Amino acid sequence: MKTLQDHIDRLNALNFKDMYNNDFFLTWEKTDEELEAVFVLADALRFMRRNNISTKVFESGLGISIFRDNSTRTRFSFASACNLLGLHPQDLDEGKSQIAHGETVRETANMVSFMADVIGIRDDMYIGKGNAYMHQVADAVTEGYQDGVLEQRPTLVNLQCDIDHPTQCMADMLHIIHEFGGAENLKGKKIAMTWAYSPSYGKPLSVPQGVIGLMTRFGMDVVLAHPEGYEVMPEVEEVARKNAAASGGSFTKTHDMDEAFRDADIVYPKSWAPFAAMEKRTILYGNNDFDGIDALEKELLAQNATHKDWACTEERMKLTKGGKALYLHCLPADITGEGCVTGEVDASVFDRYRTPLYKEASFKPYIIAAMIMLAKCEDPAALLKALEAEHTPRKRM
Amino acid sequence: MKTLQDHIDRLNALNFKDMYNNDFFLTWEKTDEELEAVFVLADALRFMRRNNISTKVFESGLGISIFRDNSTRTRFSFASACNLLGLHPQDLDEGKSQIAHGETVRETANMVSFMADVIGIRDDMYIGKGNAYMHQVADAVTEGYQDGVLEQRPTLVNLQCDIDHPTQCMADMLHIIHEFGGAENLKGKKIAMTWAYSPSYGKPLSVPQGVIGLMTRFGMDVVLAHPEGYEVMPEVEEVARKNAAASGGSFTKTHDMDEAFRDADIVYPKSWAPFAAMEKRTILYGNNDFDGIDALEKELLAQNATHKDWACTEERMKLTKGGKALYLHCLPADITGEGCVTGEVDASVFDRYRTPLYKEASFKPYIIAAMIMLAKCEDPAALLKALEAEHTPRKRM
Amino acid sequence: MKTLQDHIDRLNALNFKDMYNNDFFLTWEKTDEELEAVFVLADALRFMRRNNISTKVFESGLGISIFRDNSTRTRFSFASACNLLGLHPQDLDEGKSQIAHGETVRETANMVSFMADVIGIRDDMYIGKGNAYMHQVADAVTEGYQDGVLEQRPTLVNLQCDIDHPTQCMADMLHIIHEFGGAENLKGKKIAMTWAYSPSYGKPLSVPQGVIGLMTRFGMDVVLAHPEGYEVMPEVEEVARKNAAASGGSFTKTHDMDEAFRDADIVYPKSWAPFAAMEKRTILYGNNDFDGIDALEKELLAQNATHKDWACTEERMKLTKGGKALYLHCLPADITGEGCVTGEVDASVFDRYRTPLYKEASFKPYIIAAMIMLAKCEDPAALLKALEAEHTPRKRM
Repeated sequence: MKTLQDHIDRLNALNFKDMYNNDFFLTWEKTDEELEAVFVLADALRFMRRNNISTKVFESGLGISIFRDNSTRTRFSFASACNLLGLHPQDLDEGKSQIAHGETVRETANMVSFMADVIGIRDDMYIGKGNAYMHQVADAVTEGYQDGVLEQRPTLVNLQCDIDHPTQCMADMLHIIHEFGGAENLKGKKIAMTWAYSPSYGKPLSVPQGVIGLMTRFGMDVVLAHPEGYEVMPEVEEVARKNAAASGGSFTKTHDMDEAFRDADIVYPKSWAPFAAMEKRTILYGNNDFDGIDALEKELLAQNATHKDWACTEERMKLTKGGKALYLHCLPADITGEGCVTGEVDASVFDRYRTPLYKEASFKPYIIAAMIMLAKCEDPAALLKALEAEHTPRKRM
Repeated sequence: MKTLQDHIDRLNALNFKDMYNNDFFLTWEKTDEELEAVFVLADALRFMRRNNISTKVFESGLGISIFRDNSTRTRFSFASACNLLGLHPQDLDEGKSQIAHGETVRETANMVSFMADVIGIRDDMYIGKGNAYMHQVADAVTEGYQDGVLEQRPTLVNLQCDIDHPTQCMADMLHIIHEFGGAENLKGKKIAMTWAYSPSYGKPLSVPQGVIGLMTRFGMDVVLAHPEGYEVMPEVEEVARKNAAASGGSFTKTHDMDEAFRDADIVYPKSWAPFAAMEKRTILYGNNDFDGIDALEKELLAQNATHKDWACTEERMKLTKGGKALYLHCLPADITGEGCVTGEVDASVFDRYRTPLYKEASFKPYIIAAMIMLAKCEDPAALLKALEAEHTPRKRM
Repeated sequence: MKTLQDHIDRLNALNFKDMYNNDFFLTWEKTDEELEAVFVLADALRFMRRNNISTKVFESGLGISIFRDNSTRTRFSFASACNLLGLHPQDLDEGKSQIAHGETVRETANMVSFMADVIGIRDDMYIGKGNAYMHQVADAVTEGYQDGVLEQRPTLVNLQCDIDHPTQCMADMLHIIHEFGGAENLKGKKIAMTWAYSPSYGKPLSVPQGVIGLMTRFGMDVVLAHPEGYEVMPEVEEVARKNAAASGGSFTKTHDMDEAFRDADIVYPKSWAPFAAMEKRTILYGNNDFDGIDALEKELLAQNATHKDWACTEERMKLTKGGKALYLHCLPADITGEGCVTGEVDASVFDRYRTPLYKEASFKPYIIAAMIMLAKCEDPAALLKALEAEHTPRKRM
């Protein structure tokens, strides 16, 4: 087993100085070394927790969360990350339907941040708005700090926007790295990010976009598969293409789920809403046109229903490399026969991967904590070393 | 006044090693020495708080609470217990009406537990389900810990199920022990656990069941009194009978409230729903049959109304030992003339016992904290000694 | 820049010993030196936070908040203050519509306070009730502590009642002190507390009352301006008159907004409901007369609408001292053209004062923390000195 010093040595070999006093919006705004720093620090924090070494970086301070969509898992991951570092998680409940804008955002961002070291936001409902909203908040607290309103400038962590879901995809990736024994073993591996049918409606595009935007950086062959009409944002496809070119991998698209699964090392079958429909919905919400939203929902459910054959079945799993591709999902999945007649995945497939799926999710709190620490601590490697030397137990025995 | 060393000495004389890395579901699953360890440790923690000695066992970690029924008192008791030990309380709000099952429970239990040292659950609404649900959660996190999903295996504390309400009844019992100057003075004392009329409907059976399951272990004469049709679970009556036989006390039943009160040292008059009705309601909820639930409610209220004479009146209190039995209630009580025309207890009786009732409730946070500490610390006596030696103040002066 | 020792020296020169083990209800129940102690300690705590010195006074303990009206800002200010001192904020959500009384208050106050070091309450909806409710809670926990139910007697902080809003007005005042370079520079300065039109209904009177009750103590010329029918509580006007006489300032009233603004150094234009209407509403709520409440609302909105000319316009700002009076608001403001056609203030005026307004708000968490610390620590000056000497960092670097 590795020692903490191994992690510290790896951190010391990386250049991530621009992460200090910065935010985490999109993975493709970060360098490879910065992403690696997140992975290494996440592993180091987990190592310390497992070995009962305190990771208390903050003696006080708030971690503000703003969830503009329901969330249990991400909420608990964020709260866990804050707790791990010594921050108190405090949720701002704005009411889901209210799209705040402009000066209201600026004011609220400052009013909740007097003691905030981090602000985590989930805003994935409105295409073209979520990421922009996060930037508004980040700009507002920058200004508040510069003006002497805030004693510190909280770092912003994107807990899922309309474009990317970096904490999820980084957790997915760290899981892959562990399963394959290191990032260096991923070159040439095939990963299929594919659409799958779900009876529910309007799932965000941030996971497939985040996956193709991140996984293309490791020299893998990334395939994006979906029925016609379920396109993701073209800008993100462009990011994936450039990443693939740079990393020596590939990025391809198909409308054939079998083709995507064939010889895949990793599959990520998951429902999402068509980009165009999400745009339409954003406009309807903006106009408070709830009849329009209902009509759109019906239309989309009907459209979805024509693609029930897009499912991660036992048959399809047999097409993958040795029939044993690593199955990923951000959870919760729609499982055929469990709560829905037809879903994203066969129950027997899901059950076989239950433990790996839970492990995949278990990286998220550590990924978030690493993002916070890299933004707030100038020399995290030295700090880890100091914490190890002090050896304050997390739990008294 | 006792010293902390007295508590430590008492702990050291007890065998409670099986509580380590274990859960707390039902009092009758614990040995006498284990229950005594909870009482002693609860007193010790309270002693330390009163003497401004830090009881911080955890530097970080979450205390997850799942309340599947409304709760203010137990919620605050759990949060207080967590805070006392250094854990951050984090509530999982599932929505009251949703009965999760099977794999969903397993998944959610893991997803909220990455940093959890304790999970407290209240699930008292559904006969045959609440305790089973808690076991599902406990099994899920055991598996999660074994599989490397969780870095620690959170302990489960039953904050009220369909069978028992151990944190309440243990607090009640510690109150009795203090009022009577020690458990050794309880032999031969008579305690009347009796039904009482309330205009509300469907109160859980866990308190009367918990009381007869626990109080019969101290050599007391425990009388369970209720109108016909308000039977509690027969399995728990069987537990009470066996306990009484083993402890040298007695367990008897009556349908006469006066008989129960006569010469009683302690009375615990409280409303509960008939067991059969609770079973019926569970089925109706399972079927989402809300009309059926409404009809059942009307029927039960009518049935209750035929027993308005089951009340803790001044007249009845005169029947007790010297007219001065210790009056217990888990709170809130339905008080005649305060918010209801006829309730469980006369206002003048309740008012006379107000301070003892609040004291009774005040033990609960310490009972919960003791349960957590016994499950998470291998040698709590040594830890108390270390904390005393360090003498870190809880509050700076 | 001042040193922490400067703050400590100032504290040592003040007599505030009666604040220890006491509550904070109304500013005019405190001496001038006691108020000054709050300001000095608030500045000291902020200095420490800015210089990364831990202000952890509590190792454990809860800060209970009870918000009987919606609140984001005050909620976060209270949570921030608790966090700064080491307390865990815990909210009691009673349901807004429920007016608890008598013994229920007493019981609930004790049940949530077993580990509470502070209780913060906002209850501003019901004239004649809010402050009284806070006293009921304070009395209940005093009794609970004396009876041995509670291990400590939590201090009560008024987070806004029907009479005063001391944490807001103290924050406003500390902002003024900083803007004018010290309280000694305020003699003879003119401050206009004026009503302003808002399309919303029923805003509390506690801000204008708190302002005239506090600002009259600094030798300022305090003018209260409002249309006829928008009188504040006569008792508070009496307080203002006495304060002004004692401090060498003045307290005058006018129905002319221009007159109030003329040559003012500070303006505080803000909507509030007529006192008589608030009394009427309290009675309607008490009777659950929701039709009556609706009718009253319509009537009040119509009455408000006849005073749309009461606004803080650019023209009016030109009337103030050099056209540059300090503009105050407790936020959120109703801004003309932003969310409402006509509001309390022109958008251009509000925008010009945005940063000072945010600074004004930023004092509130420190004011609340200072109030808590003065109530819970016998010698806060010595404690600051000890914390400085230990130099535990708030945030590890």
